[in-house]
Amino acid sequence: MDKVKIDNNVFIPMPVTLVGCLLKGKANFMTAGWVSRVNANPPHIGIGIHRSHATPEGIIENNTFSVCFPDRASILRVDYCGIVSGKDTDKSKLFTSFYGELKTAPMIEEASLNLECSLVQTIDGASNYFFIGEIKGAYASPECHENGRINPKKADFLLLTMPDNTYWTLGESIGQAWRMGKQLVNK
Amino acid sequence: MDKVKIDNNVFIPMPVTLVGCLLKGKANFMTAGWVSRVNANPPHIGIGIHRSHATPEGIIENNTFSVCFPDRASILRVDYCGIVSGKDTDKSKLFTSFYGELKTAPMIEEASLNLECSLVQTIDGASNYFFIGEIKGAYASPECHENGRINPKKADFLLLTMPDNTYWTLGESIGQAWRMGKQLVNK
Repeated sequence: MDKVKIDNNVFIPMPVTLVGCLLKGKANFMTAGWVSRVNANPPHIGIGIHRSHATPEGIIENNTFSVCFPDRASILRVDYCGIVSGKDTDKSKLFTSFYGELKTAPMIEEASLNLECSLVQTIDGASNYFFIGEIKGAYASPECHENGRINPKKADFLLLTMPDNTYWTLGESIGQAWRMGKQLVNK
Repeated sequence: MDKVKIDNNVFIPMPVTLVGCLLKGKANFMTAGWVSRVNANPPHIGIGIHRSHATPEGIIENNTFSVCFPDRASILRVDYCGIVSGKDTDKSKLFTSFYGELKTAPMIEEASLNLECSLVQTIDGASNYFFIGEIKGAYASPECHENGRINPKKADFLLLTMPDNTYWTLGESIGQAWRMGKQLVNK
């Protein structure tokens, strides 16, 4: 085996998101990358948040949260949201917030895509909460949306890798999923 | 609010991975993108797998799985693994497999990064299982590894977006996390 064994605490490529919640009645956003869909129908999404953050308090109090996908124009503010805590910093004026039907899941006008979620289940990990929410509303910017679909390049989705702590844009398309591999079928 | 409301079943940018398990004693790999770290310490990772796939059977039987990160050189085989099912297709010879200490979590010599995991918890969703595993071993290719760290560009991590079903490479670096936002602190 031609492999090097590295530390088990491996970070994987992550989407750059801002998780929104209400904290003491005000909109709060924290940068988060531990995000994945967890169930198809109903549409559930999960977010892993370290217990030390302010955000779990707001999510548990209101049973709602948002997951917002910013573009590169917001990257300074996005990174700022990962540096300062809602425990001692008011981040409510950093972006133009809006609310959907849930009323307590603040979302971001400047973000390409916003999901408002109602809390369904909380996995109580040793160091992190993993909050699973049902997506109750999805709001896209008109300019990154075509025929009901998000165009990922126009949405300008961002990625984060660690421990090099680098923000990345999407690169080049290298092919179509569920299509290009067909040439290997029955070979 | 300048937003368009779209269908709630939204897909988010995903890492391209192959999830490995043993099926009837043979290595099997399926393409998966619903992957996130869920707990920092101990290092847990979660994968969302539709109940219709063959992989849940192997994971539940052996209580182990792997998460493998391929590069673009493997993309045809990666996509093939998302098209054909382990229920009726033997995928054990598609890659050069290897095993770590868990013995029942097949990994991929051709992948840049491989994580072997022991099953810790299963979230039993309506359409999907979300399997949470503890990372018990992490194996990187020497050429994408520098000073104990993965270099994401050398690892050539791939992304998937849906419903456009496009595989992407990492693009350009647009800054350093937990650093660039400091210029907004105390402004």
